[in-house]
Amino acid sequence: MSDVAARLAQIVGDHHLLTGDAIPEDYSHDEELTLAPVKPDYVARPSCAEEVAALLVAASEHGVPVTARGSGSGLSGAARPQSGGLLISFERMNAVVEVDTTNQVAVVQPGVTLTELDAATGPHGLSYMVHPGELSSSVGGNVGTNAGGMRAVKYGVARHNILGLQAVLPTGEIIRTGGRIAKVSTGYDLTQLIVGSEGTLALATEVIVKLHPRLDHSATVLAPFGNLDQVMTAVPAVLAQGLSPYILEYVDNMTMAAIVHTQNLELGIPDQVRDSCQAYLVVALDNRLVQRLDEDVERTAELLAELGAVDCYVLEGGAARRLIEARERAFWTAKAIGADDIVDTVVPRSAMPKFLAAVQEMALAAGGGVAGCGHAGDGNVHLAVLCKDPVARKKLMTDIFSLAMELGGAISGEHGLGRAKASYFMELEDPTKIALLRRIKESFDPAGILNPGVVFGQG
Amino acid sequence: MSDVAARLAQIVGDHHLLTGDAIPEDYSHDEELTLAPVKPDYVARPSCAEEVAALLVAASEHGVPVTARGSGSGLSGAARPQSGGLLISFERMNAVVEVDTTNQVAVVQPGVTLTELDAATGPHGLSYMVHPGELSSSVGGNVGTNAGGMRAVKYGVARHNILGLQAVLPTGEIIRTGGRIAKVSTGYDLTQLIVGSEGTLALATEVIVKLHPRLDHSATVLAPFGNLDQVMTAVPAVLAQGLSPYILEYVDNMTMAAIVHTQNLELGIPDQVRDSCQAYLVVALDNRLVQRLDEDVERTAELLAELGAVDCYVLEGGAARRLIEARERAFWTAKAIGADDIVDTVVPRSAMPKFLAAVQEMALAAGGGVAGCGHAGDGNVHLAVLCKDPVARKKLMTDIFSLAMELGGAISGEHGLGRAKASYFMELEDPTKIALLRRIKESFDPAGILNPGVVFGQG
Repeated sequence: MSDVAARLAQIVGDHHLLTGDAIPEDYSHDEELTLAPVKPDYVARPSCAEEVAALLVAASEHGVPVTARGSGSGLSGAARPQSGGLLISFERMNAVVEVDTTNQVAVVQPGVTLTELDAATGPHGLSYMVHPGELSSSVGGNVGTNAGGMRAVKYGVARHNILGLQAVLPTGEIIRTGGRIAKVSTGYDLTQLIVGSEGTLALATEVIVKLHPRLDHSATVLAPFGNLDQVMTAVPAVLAQGLSPYILEYVDNMTMAAIVHTQNLELGIPDQVRDSCQAYLVVALDNRLVQRLDEDVERTAELLAELGAVDCYVLEGGAARRLIEARERAFWTAKAIGADDIVDTVVPRSAMPKFLAAVQEMALAAGGGVAGCGHAGDGNVHLAVLCKDPVARKKLMTDIFSLAMELGGAISGEHGLGRAKASYFMELEDPTKIALLRRIKESFDPAGILNPGVVFGQG
Repeated sequence: MSDVAARLAQIVGDHHLLTGDAIPEDYSHDEELTLAPVKPDYVARPSCAEEVAALLVAASEHGVPVTARGSGSGLSGAARPQSGGLLISFERMNAVVEVDTTNQVAVVQPGVTLTELDAATGPHGLSYMVHPGELSSSVGGNVGTNAGGMRAVKYGVARHNILGLQAVLPTGEIIRTGGRIAKVSTGYDLTQLIVGSEGTLALATEVIVKLHPRLDHSATVLAPFGNLDQVMTAVPAVLAQGLSPYILEYVDNMTMAAIVHTQNLELGIPDQVRDSCQAYLVVALDNRLVQRLDEDVERTAELLAELGAVDCYVLEGGAARRLIEARERAFWTAKAIGADDIVDTVVPRSAMPKFLAAVQEMALAAGGGVAGCGHAGDGNVHLAVLCKDPVARKKLMTDIFSLAMELGGAISGEHGLGRAKASYFMELEDPTKIALLRRIKESFDPAGILNPGVVFGQG
């Protein structure tokens, strides 16, 4: 056993340090599609913040790069470790420390999955409302990527639902930020700086999440439209009504066909409607009172008809749940149909028609194709990119990101840059901002041990 | 005219650079109570981002400290300039650039006041929902302090309603952050780092604010309680119901008496009720449908009765508006009754009874007194501190802040640290965090020209 391994083992215990062949393949990647898996030299499974701190001190002293891992469900490669590096897996730090009903927060360790958190808060009538597609994702992962998901249109993304952190700096110092409080104007907001930093600034070892009262009633409306432009025009109109949908998604017909096929879904849409429609809008409403929900569903259906929907289906509980679940699994559908890469750009929602039309043309010109769905209310577009040739694909991806930025958007709405999208960011972002981000990075991590290659790429 | 003055005048034009006796007294302070006014050496009134950039370059080269000023309505002295310094007043940069109804945002210059913004968005049925007490405050000031106000319990603080910035770095570089988008996971969140940084990191020259649909109907319920503990116990119970009040305020009887007296307010509360009550809860509800509002008001009144309210008054439009306005002007009431300082701490709402009881005792022991009101839903406590002796007062303030932090809170919920509360922050905050904040400050402002003395104090 090397000196480094011996020291790391001393911190977490022999049983919780893995090296060499003892490291399972699963630790060599997350769910990102394009990067080759890489085994780290060490996997440590700490049990507490103090062990994380000691690991970071040891890594600093030995110049070992450190990658944090929650559930490994990320889609940008931020949890793909480096050769020679240390992967810190938070799987043992998976306690729900407290569900605090008075302050409507939960205090959790980073390894807690969303499924586990929901099981803990449910009996109190409360929910953490961030709902990325993968409920096996961990709260720590949500912090790292600033996770989003379908409910963000009403309840916000991780950033809006994470109130405080205990975090370990690369120097081994442990700090607390924020708290069981929804507002604070006392120095710079370290919580929000660490949220979305993809393990490059500090490692969260405890997270205070905001909880909302569970609303007892919800319903889902599915509206097919003749074309995607009409869907995009309908989105702001629905939002302007103040109906506050908690889901407002578009699905193009290619993606809907793939979802229906791979998930074996029966939505009761007649063939002739399906054949004449290029896109769907999914609107879900929630309310604490069933009568208000029914009224709002009716109003929504009327509104969608006025806005040109070909038809409007109010899905019953089971069908609604299956559609939403299938939509959440759109990444797996994209993977199943052989997507070569995925896009998670965000643009102002007013720019979505132009963006989507241009992207279709770009993809055809590149000899490839795109199919998509996304968080229409947020302008967050998810595309499966089909383009085998790596050179053409890289150019296509660059063109897509470049257009999104020209339209006032950004490369990633919720997946993060990770390792996979960092080079595009380096190429396209304002160099003044990159230089500033690098200086901020150095103010946390002067030795550069935390997830090198992520956000800033290799350059 | 000095070399510096000549150079600054060249940037903004002679007419928009003031020096010496030409500087009106108003520029020497904001509304903070304890600091002596200080005239800056220069007041510049730029018209655009490029002029702001040129001013910062000139200030850097000449080592001139720079303070930004919006409307000067701040309560912590972040806009109080320094002798020898340059005050940049944003009064000429007061254009509402665009009200974008599709993306539900407004793009404004920092000098726009909340009254002006509301006038611009109103005709579109939209509102910027941050509502600090002072509607003459500017959007740029809201960015600087991360302004809050009564509606934060439902609509969040400035942080949650500011989506993007154009900002000038102290080096004169102009960057854009965020955009007309509600979510983004693309590099560190510079928008949220600049929001609440009180003019110490960068100066906002354009702000993208989130707008909400205006709800047509609102109502205000006023409930007197026997004691403050009962009020504080009622708060989480109201929130747990999912009634989503947009205002949830407590007012202690001393403050209510002062408000009623100074504002000449008639609330129709019988003397015997008033005499038996130590505190009031104010609950305001809004809805797009009047019938739902009426139902929710009725449910709220029932609930407050169950929670021990002595009575419950549903205030008519005029009375409700006057009470809310009077509550918004509580700072002026505090000033009128001769408050020696004010406190804006935030604590977890579960800790409010303990905090308020302890603070009363501390104040009595210091030979002074406190009266208060605050954003009960957010745990944000506003206290008028009466304590003439400066040594005793400083100790009392330190003890109050220290207790708030022990209880998991922070020195300021929404006013910021400014110049006035910075020394308490330096004394009480974790030195590891202060060192990190300093490094972040240096990553933006290596020459330290932006608002020295603010946030970090003189140390």
